[in-house]
Amino acid sequence: MAQDTYTKRLWLEEDLADDLKWSMLVKKVLYSGKSEYQEVDLIDVGPFGKTLFLDGKVQSSEVDEWVYHELLVHPAMVMHPNPKTIFICGGGEGATAREVLRHKSVEKVVMVDIDKVVCDFCHAHLEKNKAAFESSRLELINDDARTQLEAYPGKFDVIIGDLADPLDGGPCYQLYTQDFYQNVVLPKLNPGGIFITQSGPAGFLSCTEVFTCINATLRSVFPSVLPYAQHMPVFCDVWGWNMALTDASQAELSAEEMDRRLAERVQGSMGFLDGHTFKGLCHLNKVVRKCLEEEQQVYTADCGRFIHGKGQAAKPAENGSQQ
Amino acid sequence: MAQDTYTKRLWLEEDLADDLKWSMLVKKVLYSGKSEYQEVDLIDVGPFGKTLFLDGKVQSSEVDEWVYHELLVHPAMVMHPNPKTIFICGGGEGATAREVLRHKSVEKVVMVDIDKVVCDFCHAHLEKNKAAFESSRLELINDDARTQLEAYPGKFDVIIGDLADPLDGGPCYQLYTQDFYQNVVLPKLNPGGIFITQSGPAGFLSCTEVFTCINATLRSVFPSVLPYAQHMPVFCDVWGWNMALTDASQAELSAEEMDRRLAERVQGSMGFLDGHTFKGLCHLNKVVRKCLEEEQQVYTADCGRFIHGKGQAAKPAENGSQQ
Amino acid sequence: MAQDTYTKRLWLEEDLADDLKWSMLVKKVLYSGKSEYQEVDLIDVGPFGKTLFLDGKVQSSEVDEWVYHELLVHPAMVMHPNPKTIFICGGGEGATAREVLRHKSVEKVVMVDIDKVVCDFCHAHLEKNKAAFESSRLELINDDARTQLEAYPGKFDVIIGDLADPLDGGPCYQLYTQDFYQNVVLPKLNPGGIFITQSGPAGFLSCTEVFTCINATLRSVFPSVLPYAQHMPVFCDVWGWNMALTDASQAELSAEEMDRRLAERVQGSMGFLDGHTFKGLCHLNKVVRKCLEEEQQVYTADCGRFIHGKGQAAKPAENGSQQ
Amino acid sequence: MAQDTYTKRLWLEEDLADDLKWSMLVKKVLYSGKSEYQEVDLIDVGPFGKTLFLDGKVQSSEVDEWVYHELLVHPAMVMHPNPKTIFICGGGEGATAREVLRHKSVEKVVMVDIDKVVCDFCHAHLEKNKAAFESSRLELINDDARTQLEAYPGKFDVIIGDLADPLDGGPCYQLYTQDFYQNVVLPKLNPGGIFITQSGPAGFLSCTEVFTCINATLRSVFPSVLPYAQHMPVFCDVWGWNMALTDASQAELSAEEMDRRLAERVQGSMGFLDGHTFKGLCHLNKVVRKCLEEEQQVYTADCGRFIHGKGQAAKPAENGSQQ
Repeated sequence: MAQDTYTKRLWLEEDLADDLKWSMLVKKVLYSGKSEYQEVDLIDVGPFGKTLFLDGKVQSSEVDEWVYHELLVHPAMVMHPNPKTIFICGGGEGATAREVLRHKSVEKVVMVDIDKVVCDFCHAHLEKNKAAFESSRLELINDDARTQLEAYPGKFDVIIGDLADPLDGGPCYQLYTQDFYQNVVLPKLNPGGIFITQSGPAGFLSCTEVFTCINATLRSVFPSVLPYAQHMPVFCDVWGWNMALTDASQAELSAEEMDRRLAERVQGSMGFLDGHTFKGLCHLNKVVRKCLEEEQQVYTADCGRFIHGKGQAAKPAENGSQQ
Repeated sequence: MAQDTYTKRLWLEEDLADDLKWSMLVKKVLYSGKSEYQEVDLIDVGPFGKTLFLDGKVQSSEVDEWVYHELLVHPAMVMHPNPKTIFICGGGEGATAREVLRHKSVEKVVMVDIDKVVCDFCHAHLEKNKAAFESSRLELINDDARTQLEAYPGKFDVIIGDLADPLDGGPCYQLYTQDFYQNVVLPKLNPGGIFITQSGPAGFLSCTEVFTCINATLRSVFPSVLPYAQHMPVFCDVWGWNMALTDASQAELSAEEMDRRLAERVQGSMGFLDGHTFKGLCHLNKVVRKCLEEEQQVYTADCGRFIHGKGQAAKPAENGSQQ
Repeated sequence: MAQDTYTKRLWLEEDLADDLKWSMLVKKVLYSGKSEYQEVDLIDVGPFGKTLFLDGKVQSSEVDEWVYHELLVHPAMVMHPNPKTIFICGGGEGATAREVLRHKSVEKVVMVDIDKVVCDFCHAHLEKNKAAFESSRLELINDDARTQLEAYPGKFDVIIGDLADPLDGGPCYQLYTQDFYQNVVLPKLNPGGIFITQSGPAGFLSCTEVFTCINATLRSVFPSVLPYAQHMPVFCDVWGWNMALTDASQAELSAEEMDRRLAERVQGSMGFLDGHTFKGLCHLNKVVRKCLEEEQQVYTADCGRFIHGKGQAAKPAENGSQQ
Repeated sequence: MAQDTYTKRLWLEEDLADDLKWSMLVKKVLYSGKSEYQEVDLIDVGPFGKTLFLDGKVQSSEVDEWVYHELLVHPAMVMHPNPKTIFICGGGEGATAREVLRHKSVEKVVMVDIDKVVCDFCHAHLEKNKAAFESSRLELINDDARTQLEAYPGKFDVIIGDLADPLDGGPCYQLYTQDFYQNVVLPKLNPGGIFITQSGPAGFLSCTEVFTCINATLRSVFPSVLPYAQHMPVFCDVWGWNMALTDASQAELSAEEMDRRLAERVQGSMGFLDGHTFKGLCHLNKVVRKCLEEEQQVYTADCGRFIHGKGQAAKPAENGSQQ
């Protein structure tokens, strides 16, 4: 029993839905901070180890953050023929930059996260990401990602969205809209450029919360969009990503070629990802595929669909503005 | 907020590990019973709807039991060329029989579950499974599955293991051993017969609890074993199955042929499964594949590996008795 | 451990304050009902036994309801020289009537509770109160207590307030106001009549929530008010009562005379109350006495002070309208 | 709602019984330490403010420790005609010494607590007790209280037991036995000396756990024992003390004389205690008085009665009151 080892029963309770919550045993509150935007905590919890929380919500944990970040970064990086310049929207934790910088081809990473306190906190306390924060190839800017991406000189080979889910009234919502993709992201991609974004829960019960809508929004702008998904224990659900390609032919990468490029281009080996694994992640099940096909809504500046709780039925689509 | 609707905050709390628990809001305790083996409850909970509990542990829920049972039953049934006789070890809930009976080829289903109270409870209260319990093609026996399988006249085309996980000292452990597979299951399969069993958690953090060991045990007996996995929300993890074939060539089924057979042989359509989906489920990720390859232990009558809690490290393998 | 006995861990969670909650293990949900006003449940919980809940809030439990009701009913009844006619505001549970009816002098009890469903539920399911509901001396009316008390022919010797605490916007608030006491209760009391009301939490940390204000309100109307308090386990606090006497001299009852009257007038013996005990309950501590003395606010129709949560500081008194 | 202010929902969960637990919202983990005996934590929680925990169990909280310590220290101190030398068994928190040192008559306080880490921790972090730890009148010894009391030169006017409850196998049990009282405490008291000990839960449901048995044990040794009780919010129960007098006539102190002595002898004023309050605390209710009268068991070295959980029925007495 846990009580034998941890006599103090301190539980971190998180709502998974209005009618479902879970509680992780707190082993040690390691560091706590507070920015103008949010509370930041690094807590050693339950079966997840050192876990980063923003406002009490899990961001990433020791046991599975490496899976999340391998899947966010490397598929897009290896589908691109030769990625040199990378832009990260968000990513203040530093792990996305860490994975990007493993690619030998990368010359420049621009990372724009609004919250300096979170960046400083993660730089100071997340040992695995320390080198990335201190890399000469990284430029870290604390500002709004849209403003900086629009203004930044030149274009990028890969743009990565490592942001919180599009919440009602949340600061990240505008970074998931058709307008942002059409008028900011697409123009700032070099020819053959790739955009990849985390896309929220993608389980057969939860995929219509935001995953299918992000997919539909991207499909309304890009010629090719590749959705994929993997269970993330700390998020207590299957998680989704959407990769948007300006050159649809790049998505035709064989498992063997993916393995070859990973071996050739990346320092160190992958823990979770290889070509065979990625093929599996792209084989979405019948329910999720149907939801993707039937999704009618795109995120526009004034008409969103939001995560309120996983169990909640998504709002009916109010318009069908695909182009 | 849930409180607005359900002013009474009754939570069903379940340990997911020693240091992780979750709580489902109870909307209504529908039925409660008690057998000599366990408590049986049907409770409308949290985001999962009507959920069956044995001794307070989730067995299956309205929102995802159909996924579990499609994946347990239909892949094996369609890989077999013409399944007529089926034996179910366990399965007292009735849903496995329900799915089996959808196959037009099926002439006889023998279902052996030790707990008559559970069977009667599910027959009475699970509307979706009522017709299965009352089918003239079903023979329901309340006894030990091994005893009955050994004694039953004739052989079977498909044998299905729908049992609780192999728990230390639990009644089901003997039904996961090499001895049972070698000396009972294999001899009772017709030529070309298939054995399929649920196999516990199969996530990249949890697959060594029992999944890899069940796989290794089956590989020590059968010429071909096909493992696959899918996230099950109500179990808060990825779940695994292992299919063992006496004729390895049957596993070479294309997605298209699977779709064709499902359409041709089964009454009604699938909600979750199709050929494309199944290909994805069989593409296990790098971590799980490595654990399967490295697994050295088989379940023997006196040397098991048990689920104590998901977060716990599996016991080191004590021998490597593959043949 | 509880888990050994109750393998199903169903917890009823109740907020004691915004930052303090407790959870009682549910042994059995006995009966559930729903009126137009509230949910009614009888649940066998934790250490409290059969417990009545309205909208998930504890009303009374097997282990201590008898203490609550002895203290609500008998002190006022024995201070009165010869109580024959009794009016109960609220009391739908039936236990207040049960205690009143133990007094041989009582000829008529009028009980007015707004919620017929609760009364019927308690009549049907609370074995100890069944005889009271069926007594020929009881007249039960389901209506607003003020309306009925005003309209009821004649006057009463003892009027008992057995109502929910005065909650913001709650239906009971009007039955705690100066106007109600002055213009309804006082005129309906016979000479020498006594009014007694439950008065919410009366601990040294919680007494200013409503207890001191109810006391001040009664003091603004009656010549003598006697406050007393006792810890009630199921309410997780010390609980308070205020007795208002039209004849102040009746409060001068010695412990010995109280014991004598209890023995003489009441059927059966008391479990908790005797003269010595009651003297103790009336010896309020220094903190509570000071809060009573300093209380400036009375409940008027439009200016209340409400329980929002025990830990919350009471609103500052906005006026001091004693007369 | 608490979530608005404390977005991180960290709950400290404490079992009140096997089937009742409560959870305090953690506002800040202030300090954590670990001795060879126990974990020590100072945590700002729920409605209780800065709260000291040993092994996750509440020891004392900002909102009510002053009540506990006034009631432990001052009644005995003022019943004694002129207390100069004081011995404290336990008391590592420092608050008992703090209250003792307020008495101008006190020349010497010997405090013996086994756990140096706890003493150092409280000295460093409990601002209110800092001056006491640094008083020239205090001698602090970290050792077993019995050993030190036996060996200490001279006798004492007042001996105070500020120890954990007598738990099965716990280190404090021996300090509640007849043998300890008879052979160590009594011989070390000056003529007219007084012994006072905290005595665990004393509610009408909980008083037989240890309170009545400590009382019976003291009655078997001392000519006069005065039990009293007060609700302590942070312990979620009524708490009890037993005062044992070598001179029974000292217990005949009037409320007025107590007030006079408190004013005359003690620096500063009392927050909770005065003569009227104390009279109330000594008026135990009918249930508790009956349990005290009927208690047959005394704590001997090899026959104890222990707190396992408040809801649990006390073990039947196995023998009658040794003298």
